[in-house]
Amino acid sequence: MSAVLDKFQSDKARVDSQAIQSFPCSNKIYVQGSRNDIRVPMREITCADTPSARELGKNPPVTVYDTSGPYTDPAVSIDIRQGLAGPRDGWISARNDTAQLDALSSTYGRKRSSDGNLVELRFAHCKTPRRAKSGCNVTQMHYARRGIITPEMEFIAIRENQRLHEYHDKSLLKRHPGVPFGARIPAEITPEFVRSEVAAGRAIIPANINHPETEPMIIGRNFLVKINANIGNSAVTSSIAEEVEKMTWAIRWGADTVMDLSTGRNIHETREWIIRNSPVPIGTVPIYQALEKVNGKAEELTWEIYRDTLVEQAEQGVDYFTIHAGVRLPYIPLTANRLTGIVSRGGAILAKWCLAHHRENFLYTHFEEICEIMRAYDVAFSLGDGLRPGSIADANDEAQFSELETLGELTQIAWRHDVQVMIEGPGHVPMHLIRQNMEKQLGSCAEAPFYTLGPLTTDIAPGYDHITSAIGAAMIGWYGTAMLCYVTPKEHLGLPNKDDVKDGIIAYKIAAHAADLAKGHPAAQLRDNALSKARFDFRWEDQFNLALDPDKAKEFHDETLPKDAHKVAHFCSMCGPNFCSMKITRDVRDYAKQQGIDNMDEAISRGLDDMANEFKRQGGEIYNKT
Amino acid sequence: MSAVLDKFQSDKARVDSQAIQSFPCSNKIYVQGSRNDIRVPMREITCADTPSARELGKNPPVTVYDTSGPYTDPAVSIDIRQGLAGPRDGWISARNDTAQLDALSSTYGRKRSSDGNLVELRFAHCKTPRRAKSGCNVTQMHYARRGIITPEMEFIAIRENQRLHEYHDKSLLKRHPGVPFGARIPAEITPEFVRSEVAAGRAIIPANINHPETEPMIIGRNFLVKINANIGNSAVTSSIAEEVEKMTWAIRWGADTVMDLSTGRNIHETREWIIRNSPVPIGTVPIYQALEKVNGKAEELTWEIYRDTLVEQAEQGVDYFTIHAGVRLPYIPLTANRLTGIVSRGGAILAKWCLAHHRENFLYTHFEEICEIMRAYDVAFSLGDGLRPGSIADANDEAQFSELETLGELTQIAWRHDVQVMIEGPGHVPMHLIRQNMEKQLGSCAEAPFYTLGPLTTDIAPGYDHITSAIGAAMIGWYGTAMLCYVTPKEHLGLPNKDDVKDGIIAYKIAAHAADLAKGHPAAQLRDNALSKARFDFRWEDQFNLALDPDKAKEFHDETLPKDAHKVAHFCSMCGPNFCSMKITRDVRDYAKQQGIDNMDEAISRGLDDMANEFKRQGGEIYNKT
Repeated sequence: MSAVLDKFQSDKARVDSQAIQSFPCSNKIYVQGSRNDIRVPMREITCADTPSARELGKNPPVTVYDTSGPYTDPAVSIDIRQGLAGPRDGWISARNDTAQLDALSSTYGRKRSSDGNLVELRFAHCKTPRRAKSGCNVTQMHYARRGIITPEMEFIAIRENQRLHEYHDKSLLKRHPGVPFGARIPAEITPEFVRSEVAAGRAIIPANINHPETEPMIIGRNFLVKINANIGNSAVTSSIAEEVEKMTWAIRWGADTVMDLSTGRNIHETREWIIRNSPVPIGTVPIYQALEKVNGKAEELTWEIYRDTLVEQAEQGVDYFTIHAGVRLPYIPLTANRLTGIVSRGGAILAKWCLAHHRENFLYTHFEEICEIMRAYDVAFSLGDGLRPGSIADANDEAQFSELETLGELTQIAWRHDVQVMIEGPGHVPMHLIRQNMEKQLGSCAEAPFYTLGPLTTDIAPGYDHITSAIGAAMIGWYGTAMLCYVTPKEHLGLPNKDDVKDGIIAYKIAAHAADLAKGHPAAQLRDNALSKARFDFRWEDQFNLALDPDKAKEFHDETLPKDAHKVAHFCSMCGPNFCSMKITRDVRDYAKQQGIDNMDEAISRGLDDMANEFKRQGGEIYNKT
Repeated sequence: MSAVLDKFQSDKARVDSQAIQSFPCSNKIYVQGSRNDIRVPMREITCADTPSARELGKNPPVTVYDTSGPYTDPAVSIDIRQGLAGPRDGWISARNDTAQLDALSSTYGRKRSSDGNLVELRFAHCKTPRRAKSGCNVTQMHYARRGIITPEMEFIAIRENQRLHEYHDKSLLKRHPGVPFGARIPAEITPEFVRSEVAAGRAIIPANINHPETEPMIIGRNFLVKINANIGNSAVTSSIAEEVEKMTWAIRWGADTVMDLSTGRNIHETREWIIRNSPVPIGTVPIYQALEKVNGKAEELTWEIYRDTLVEQAEQGVDYFTIHAGVRLPYIPLTANRLTGIVSRGGAILAKWCLAHHRENFLYTHFEEICEIMRAYDVAFSLGDGLRPGSIADANDEAQFSELETLGELTQIAWRHDVQVMIEGPGHVPMHLIRQNMEKQLGSCAEAPFYTLGPLTTDIAPGYDHITSAIGAAMIGWYGTAMLCYVTPKEHLGLPNKDDVKDGIIAYKIAAHAADLAKGHPAAQLRDNALSKARFDFRWEDQFNLALDPDKAKEFHDETLPKDAHKVAHFCSMCGPNFCSMKITRDVRDYAKQQGIDNMDEAISRGLDDMANEFKRQGGEIYNKT
């Protein structure tokens, strides 16, 4: 423990210097909403002019969705000891339906906050939490159903549009119609549309009233596909400082939410540091901490301990809880003949409890009480798939789908409390069984957003499961999954380090974007078009800057051709000057011009006339033996 | 040039030491066919017993498809200066339809072989080539159509089965029925089935009579999905030794064929070294070398120079040629309004030639003559997609599909000569437009095998295009593509080094395997099952050894938990001992035993009795408010 503490002490004063660098040629911009305090952050990537201006002209800057928070705003001074400012503070207090408590409500929270040994470890500026006033329901769903458009909803509408309607360049706006599988994404996202989707339960806004630091975001299949990154220490490894660093690193590369899955020491304090410094919603799996409280003995878990944990975490500001209330006792025998049994940690813990007591899962039997806690802080449910398949062989079996049906029943109960719900999904599923997952989920869970781990499309590539699962994630994202939980290359093998976190995130940004393209999201293809145009123009720096990972693109390019000169050259290292097809394509156009012909079509049509005559002469056969 | 030569000289005596290491716990085995000289190589991975033998018992070794050739056979001494032995030598000569020539037939080949300056550079043991005797057709398709089952076909049948029928372990044989999209993969591949597929043109066996070193393999959608790795130097970088090393490295990790796309110096000699040392079919794009012969001036290309290049390469033993005969003059204007024009190098070269001369593509007009060359050596066509889309915006456009229809016409011509054909496909295609590519190809090209580059499902991730394209490759492989051309992380940015080659191959082995699973290939799921069973048993070493990349899996595991002790521990670094769901699943079973109950089902059923009574007491509601 002292080693952990030392490591933390030596690091905690510093923010990760890698996480606060500006992206190349990028400006942090804020798009203002209907009021001064709605300022929606975006990243604007500046592009160079096309060298031959006559032909293609100016290239407008490209606006991209930005999850990196104040860390990439050069105007903001970051100090993780202070935490972030709370853009939602004013919105929450103005609603006048919450009260600032005098003290923490949870027994455990109070115990930790009064423990003198933890002073060094503790985030220094904890405020007392807010809770809904008696009789009030403070969820975004509750407001939505009453017809209220919250500032969060307006913020999200602006954010989702990515300034698409400010573009007029035809080549950038070119796009294929999508195949949306029942998604209905409007040409422009309005605040009212956000409200109506939240009211219908088709989308959620994870926004705990005790996490005012968040920049609001939405999870629903009629919006951009989101991704989640898991971080968290374990009993074996990791320190608080490392976990905060992983969070800031994860949001830099595009994590829309972060789950803190810590199971080691000091997870209460670790979580506080993460939440106070996170501009994205934070999710947790409370059963992990509850189990720590009973020294890892699942059979000693009680509803009271679990309940206290929910309140403890809700008052810290956790935005969504994974709750495995669907692991019902009757389903456990359905896993007996599986190749890999129960692979969800939460699922296994609850299965063990159920068997030890020969009783139904206490999360299931206490579900209404859980709803009452959730609505007092606006914590969203992420109903856990404790019986998800852990191997291709176990995909789409009775255990998995039985649990999914129960999650559908629980969704209806949560909605009666106006509590927001998303549904977790697998796991390991071969490609041809993925769509069935999505259809079952939509059917069983009344279109509540689906949130899937991958799925991994094969078991045979440990070390590369970010790829085995990006394939499944892209497909299920296309079919309708609203948020994709990343898988890192270390899956099944070890805890991810920063490199693994980044590799997992980029793989999942690819999957999410591929899904947005396939669904036909109106704002998706613009970035592809801008990057491809830069590529065709040999604007190398623009190609790097528009990439999901500008650093890697530049590094790879420079490995073969390190000279700056090559970055404006009209060929590249792969083919050399004579073999560059893009150069040749331009030569083709130039050739036409040299012939005194104004445009290529005319050049070709002259050729075609010759050909046409030749065809006629030869009898008009499509293929002529020569 | 002297630098290149020096580099080559200093390296050429050595085979890459990484390429000849045995895989961990693996044996090279040979399955004998109907005759002594049909010996089909496979890799057998030994597995440990499950610790608790009573429960799961012995674990049989797992046989996997092996492309690594003699390099991983400890009984074979490799000397790349000598080249490999030719297992097909006897088969080819026994057919008595070929003659060993006295000299090379191509002008260029003769010039290079008599150039004294090249002695140091040249592979020292060139034999004079074989060619079909006058009036003979020596293609595998020709034999197949005459009802002849060649040794190549029998070899392939044994190879494709992967000894599936020797397994009797039910948990290993468990598999999901596939969704084959019209593929018809039999439960067991017979030599006659191989013959019939080749006869129908649905599969090809790339097997030049001058490349007897190959271990026969098949490309067709009723067989395992194959992958190709591209290597090759350019004018800017790379030496012969490096390219040979990339080839041996590529086949180690699973490349079923290798394309030598060299465009730099000494490409004739580079190719000779590669072919003489390659146990997998080699493909090339002859127009690249033809262009070198006219100093990069596309308009100076002639049919005579191209023809001489085909003969030169056919006599070296190239197994398939990419030929862009479908880039017809009338289609070139269709690319004028594209975002990224023509991105295929071959396509661009031919487009330039067509425009320069205002004439139809000479590969199209001379196609029958090309067929005559192909059938004299059994070189297969890989009809190139010179007008493939180079960006999401350009996917599935008129230029692309017009060319595809022409490729279908050319397929019919080739088949009239009994010349084997596969069809190349894109490129950059968003997920929802991929299936249309496959369907158009099957329709236009009468089910000739499809061979696609990716496709990349988004343009925005340079540096990660092995992932953007593995998504598309897995999907199109499922829909029916027979071979997937890999894309490395360096795509669009630079020439791949060995690490990139491996990353590209593993991503594509994943895609191909995911496709085999989804199609329902009978032999596919066994390896997933074996690996998942090892994972569930905490047989860490088996999990590594059964992985596509044992080295990486072990390295990742050891990063967090470097002690050997952990490799037999019943938990791992991700969760620690209390949170391991697999451990808990076992605890659940053990708990049942402690209760004096023989099996878990009974333990549960007791619990269920209690629950059932409780349900009845409460009125039988599925959810009861508590």
